[in-house]
Amino acid sequence: MTNEQAMGGYVTGGQAFERDTQYIEDRIVADPAAVRALPAPPPSKIGSVGYGLAPDAEAWPVEPGRYRLVAAAACPWANRTLIVRRLLGLEHVISLGRPGPVHDARSWTFDREGSPDNAGDVDPVLGTARLQQNYFARFPDYPRGITVPAIVDVPSGGVVTNDYPQITLDFSTQWRPFHRDGAPDLLPQDRLSQMWPVIERVFTEINNGVYRCGFAGSQEAYDAAYARLWEAMDWLEERLAGSRYLVGDTITEADVRLFTTLVRFDAVYHGHFKTNRNKLAEMDRLWAYARDLFQTPGFGDTVDFAQIKRHYYATHTDINPTRIVPAGPELSNWLEPHGRERLGGSPFGDGTPPGPVPEEERVPEGHTPLESPDPPRSA
Amino acid sequence: MTNEQAMGGYVTGGQAFERDTQYIEDRIVADPAAVRALPAPPPSKIGSVGYGLAPDAEAWPVEPGRYRLVAAAACPWANRTLIVRRLLGLEHVISLGRPGPVHDARSWTFDREGSPDNAGDVDPVLGTARLQQNYFARFPDYPRGITVPAIVDVPSGGVVTNDYPQITLDFSTQWRPFHRDGAPDLLPQDRLSQMWPVIERVFTEINNGVYRCGFAGSQEAYDAAYARLWEAMDWLEERLAGSRYLVGDTITEADVRLFTTLVRFDAVYHGHFKTNRNKLAEMDRLWAYARDLFQTPGFGDTVDFAQIKRHYYATHTDINPTRIVPAGPELSNWLEPHGRERLGGSPFGDGTPPGPVPEEERVPEGHTPLESPDPPRSA
Repeated sequence: MTNEQAMGGYVTGGQAFERDTQYIEDRIVADPAAVRALPAPPPSKIGSVGYGLAPDAEAWPVEPGRYRLVAAAACPWANRTLIVRRLLGLEHVISLGRPGPVHDARSWTFDREGSPDNAGDVDPVLGTARLQQNYFARFPDYPRGITVPAIVDVPSGGVVTNDYPQITLDFSTQWRPFHRDGAPDLLPQDRLSQMWPVIERVFTEINNGVYRCGFAGSQEAYDAAYARLWEAMDWLEERLAGSRYLVGDTITEADVRLFTTLVRFDAVYHGHFKTNRNKLAEMDRLWAYARDLFQTPGFGDTVDFAQIKRHYYATHTDINPTRIVPAGPELSNWLEPHGRERLGGSPFGDGTPPGPVPEEERVPEGHTPLESPDPPRSA
Repeated sequence: MTNEQAMGGYVTGGQAFERDTQYIEDRIVADPAAVRALPAPPPSKIGSVGYGLAPDAEAWPVEPGRYRLVAAAACPWANRTLIVRRLLGLEHVISLGRPGPVHDARSWTFDREGSPDNAGDVDPVLGTARLQQNYFARFPDYPRGITVPAIVDVPSGGVVTNDYPQITLDFSTQWRPFHRDGAPDLLPQDRLSQMWPVIERVFTEINNGVYRCGFAGSQEAYDAAYARLWEAMDWLEERLAGSRYLVGDTITEADVRLFTTLVRFDAVYHGHFKTNRNKLAEMDRLWAYARDLFQTPGFGDTVDFAQIKRHYYATHTDINPTRIVPAGPELSNWLEPHGRERLGGSPFGDGTPPGPVPEEERVPEGHTPLESPDPPRSA
């Protein structure tokens, strides 16, 4: 994402970082009329399952091919949607628009900085150069940050929702008829009540906790943020002793949400956000857990380290004014054996892993330690 | 130190970092007349042994109690002098003035930022608040950077030399009658010819190499500096496979010069200077070697991590404009067993380790992972 506050300066002198959590809360649902009839969800920064619409929000119908997910590979909040879309096999019903790693003062842009797979500077389906145009197509005076992930209604070109905590939940619950065969259940009913508090703590303490360190406006705010982050990191290190995944022995939405922060930890947060008590690679269980997920189809194959590093280091000029992007860290250790199989469990339970990444969505060589599979031969 | 270039901005846009290597090349020597008669040294950035004076330089006589070493604990170049002074037992003939960790735009200052051992804001012996005053007492129009280490002639208050590569060599060769019993020979005659190329490479590639990364003015300059640094780090990792110390099986000047960079590596350079291929703690031999030295009396007991971190992060506002000092990394791992004894050798050879640090020079608790010994009871 990148909220309105962040679009200007990232650090506010003397102040702790507070994330703007106001989003366009429309939803894309299987049965709009039924959802409209449900009670409004309780206030939540992590989304909800089984509730209706927020006040003033609208319900849009699930419809294959109608919507375009706009998700920058750089962004951890957008990365969630890339992973869930792929785990569930929604690539063929929800297309993907990919902004480049950096954005200007007001908007993510479709400039891929020379990436060969997006000729020109406009999104090939939406025809827009800046995601702001799609926000304005929906709300001409849209006042808040131009964030990713956003889902755009292709016919009208307008943004339907940028409510990132809800988007992945709706991918799981509302698009079920379009899931691939063997898709995992990322929101298993019998574990949901265990999952919510974990997801909530991961959001406030980890996903947002790293930003609280990096955008602290005073030494005191930073010190408090650092203590809070590491208390939660230690909690996770303990939690992962007994079970292979965060909640139970198959992957769930909770793992997706933790993973996108962990995969950026040593590459960006450790240095750029000063979350440097230790590297992730220095925590036995959490690091093995992160590698386990990275090596699971649908996770690591969505991760573009080059874009991630470029995004943070080149965008936050108030904490990295030179915009120089570090060459490290060495990434090959992501492929080392993780040994977590001994805990039992299996990522997809009764299901199966997703197939290869569609060629046009592959992370370029050199941006990932993964070896690219041979591209399919043209017939 | 901190050279004139660095006193202004540290990063020059578009340019690689070049260290100013012009210093006040006077020397303090055992026999001034004899030294004046020797041939001038060849151009060198690492100092020399057995030569006379540089053009326009003067020779001052060794004299116990006459000189004050001004050395900020924060600074790696000054740290060399703290270590050698202590290894050789020169504390009682050369007193120590200690600037605080940060300096203003033109000078290191004796403001210790509330440290209780330096009442008021002036050096208790020199009576100056800013080291610049001592430079001006010698050269009223001194045009270059106000650097540490500097040796001040106490009677006149003027700086004798700030030629840091020569200062430690002269501690070893010119102050020999005042060395403590059991002092090590840091410049063993039979290893000198092996030492010079190692010291030179350590200077250009490591000591200065980390600055070349941190103060790079362009991505290209940084990328080149990073490649150059890591080539040398890999060379050291190999070199330390077969012998306990850099040159031979006792500590030498070469180890002192490498140590002061290594001890700052994970605490500062890894994040602040973007030397982040890996942490020092991720390199088996180099990390064990650094711990071995840290745990050797005279090395680790001169290291003030709090001042080191504060210096870099609060001073280089063009790379850390928030001036926030990271709370990490965890330092306790410096005390873990290093296992290097199995390579044979012993730090002091036929000599002995230095005794406890004088109480007034001890690194404050909380600034080091070392446990402070009980302070001596007042009799």
